[in-house]
Amino acid sequence: MRQDADTATERVEGKLTEDDVRRIVREEVEHAFKRDPAARRASIIASKGTLDWAYPPLILATTAAAAGMDTAVFFTFYGLSIIHKDFAKKLKVDPVGNPAMPMPMPIPDIVSSLPGMVPLASRMMRSRFATHNVATIGELLDAARDIGVRLIACRMTMEVFGYDEADFIDGVEFGGAAAFMSQARRSHVTMFI
Amino acid sequence: MRQDADTATERVEGKLTEDDVRRIVREEVEHAFKRDPAARRASIIASKGTLDWAYPPLILATTAAAAGMDTAVFFTFYGLSIIHKDFAKKLKVDPVGNPAMPMPMPIPDIVSSLPGMVPLASRMMRSRFATHNVATIGELLDAARDIGVRLIACRMTMEVFGYDEADFIDGVEFGGAAAFMSQARRSHVTMFI
Amino acid sequence: MRQDADTATERVEGKLTEDDVRRIVREEVEHAFKRDPAARRASIIASKGTLDWAYPPLILATTAAAAGMDTAVFFTFYGLSIIHKDFAKKLKVDPVGNPAMPMPMPIPDIVSSLPGMVPLASRMMRSRFATHNVATIGELLDAARDIGVRLIACRMTMEVFGYDEADFIDGVEFGGAAAFMSQARRSHVTMFI
Repeated sequence: MRQDADTATERVEGKLTEDDVRRIVREEVEHAFKRDPAARRASIIASKGTLDWAYPPLILATTAAAAGMDTAVFFTFYGLSIIHKDFAKKLKVDPVGNPAMPMPMPIPDIVSSLPGMVPLASRMMRSRFATHNVATIGELLDAARDIGVRLIACRMTMEVFGYDEADFIDGVEFGGAAAFMSQARRSHVTMFI
Repeated sequence: MRQDADTATERVEGKLTEDDVRRIVREEVEHAFKRDPAARRASIIASKGTLDWAYPPLILATTAAAAGMDTAVFFTFYGLSIIHKDFAKKLKVDPVGNPAMPMPMPIPDIVSSLPGMVPLASRMMRSRFATHNVATIGELLDAARDIGVRLIACRMTMEVFGYDEADFIDGVEFGGAAAFMSQARRSHVTMFI
Repeated sequence: MRQDADTATERVEGKLTEDDVRRIVREEVEHAFKRDPAARRASIIASKGTLDWAYPPLILATTAAAAGMDTAVFFTFYGLSIIHKDFAKKLKVDPVGNPAMPMPMPIPDIVSSLPGMVPLASRMMRSRFATHNVATIGELLDAARDIGVRLIACRMTMEVFGYDEADFIDGVEFGGAAAFMSQARRSHVTMFI
C-alpha cells in the first residue's frame, strides 16, 4: 500500500516540502487507524445471574479473545453468580416476566410462578443448549480462562452480597469499577450485559 | 484551521526541520481523530424479545444510520422475535417483575400474573406509543432497512430455538458472533440491549 | 519517550528524508493514540427503573467522571424514574423473575408475587447497601451532578409516559436520541443499561 521507502528516500533527499510531509502523514495515519489499539480490546460487564444471561458475556468474551483481543469481563451485581463456585446450582432461568422465552406451550405467568417451574425451565434450557452442541457455562468458563480472558469480580458487590474470595472459581481476579473503567476507556467494544 | 499549503511549501522548501515535521504531524493527527473511522460505525446487539425492549435497538440503530453511521444490529437470544415474520404477535410486554412500568393504577405482581394481563399490558403500550406518534415496530423495521441498517440474525440461537431462515422478515442476513465482533471492534458505539 | 527536539533539529536540519519523516510520524501517532479523545468520553443509557438497576449507571458514570472523562447519562424508558423528583418512592426492586437475587431464603415466584413482597425486597436492598456504606441513589445523583456528569432525560419517552420537565430533579437536561448519539459516537465507553 505504501511506496517503497528506499526509492522514495533517494528521490526526495533533502528536498521534502510541507506537501510531501502532509502526504506521508496522511498515509501513516490512515495505516495507524487500521491498527487502532482500542480495536484490540473488549471490556464487558456481566450483571445478570440467570442461566440464560450467563451465556452472552461468556460467548462474546471468548469470541473477542479468539479474535486476538485483550478481553476482560467484570462480574458485578447478580453477575457474580456466574463465577461462583456453585454456579451450576445458582444459575437458573425464570420464565416469569419473559413472554419471549420459547416454551413448549404458552404458559401464563400465574402458572410459571408456581414452585417447580424455575427448575423445569432451567432443565429445559440446559438440555436445549446441549442438544445443539452449545458449550455449557462450565465449558465456557474453562475456555475463557484458557484463552486469557480476565475474569474480574466486583469487590463492592461482593461485600454487599456477603461473598468472599474463596467463594469464586480459580483464576478470578478481584477489583473495582475504577480499574475496570481504565481498561474500558481504551476499548472499542464495551458492553453492559 | 491548517495553514495554506502553497505558501507554506514556498517558505520551507528543502528546509523542513524535525520541529516543522512534528508540528505538521500534530495538526494532521488532530484533524484525523475528528474523522476517526470508528466514529462512523455502530454495532448493536438486540437480545430481548418483549415489545418494550424491541424499541431501543431499532430507535438507536435508525438514529445512528440517519447520522450517516454504518450500523448493524445483531439479533440473538430472545431478540430473534423482533425480526421474526410474526413479530407483531410475538412481541408482548409483561408487567410482572417490572414495578417501573407506568400502569393506570398500582397492580401487585399476583394480579399482573393472571392470564389476560400480558395482552392487556401489550395493548396499552401499543396504544400509548401510537397516541404519541412513535413509529410501530413494523415501521421502525421498514425504516431501518430503507436507511441501510444491517439486520443480522444469530445463527447459533436460531438453531437452539429451532428457527430457520424462512421464519424471518425480508432483508435479514444470517451470521455468527465472530462476524459481528469484527465489525464491533471497529465501532465506537457498541451496545448490548 | 521522544528524543530531545532541539538536538534532533540541529542534527538533521534541511536533510530530513522520507524515512526520517515516517519515523517521526510513527512516534507522534503512537503518542496521539494514547491521548485518543474518545478515551476521555463515556456515554451511558439508563433504561431500567428498578432500585437495583438504578445503581450501575450512576456508579459507572461517577467512576468515569472521577477519572476525568466527559460523561453523559441518557435516561430513557423506565430509566426516567431514576431522575424523577419522586425517585425515592418510584425505585423499587422486584424479586419476581430474578432467581439470582440474594434473599434470606429461597422464595418461589408465587410467593414473591404476593402484595407486600416488592416493598419488602426494596427495603431489604436499601438496608443491605446502607450497611455496606454504598451511597444511596440520592447521594449518587448529587455526586454525579457535583462532578459534572450530564443527566439527560429522553424527550420522546417523557411524552409517551406523560412526564414534563417539572417532574425531574434540578440540573437535568432534556434531549433526544440523535443528540445523545452524536456524543456516543465520539466515546469509547458506550453502554446500554
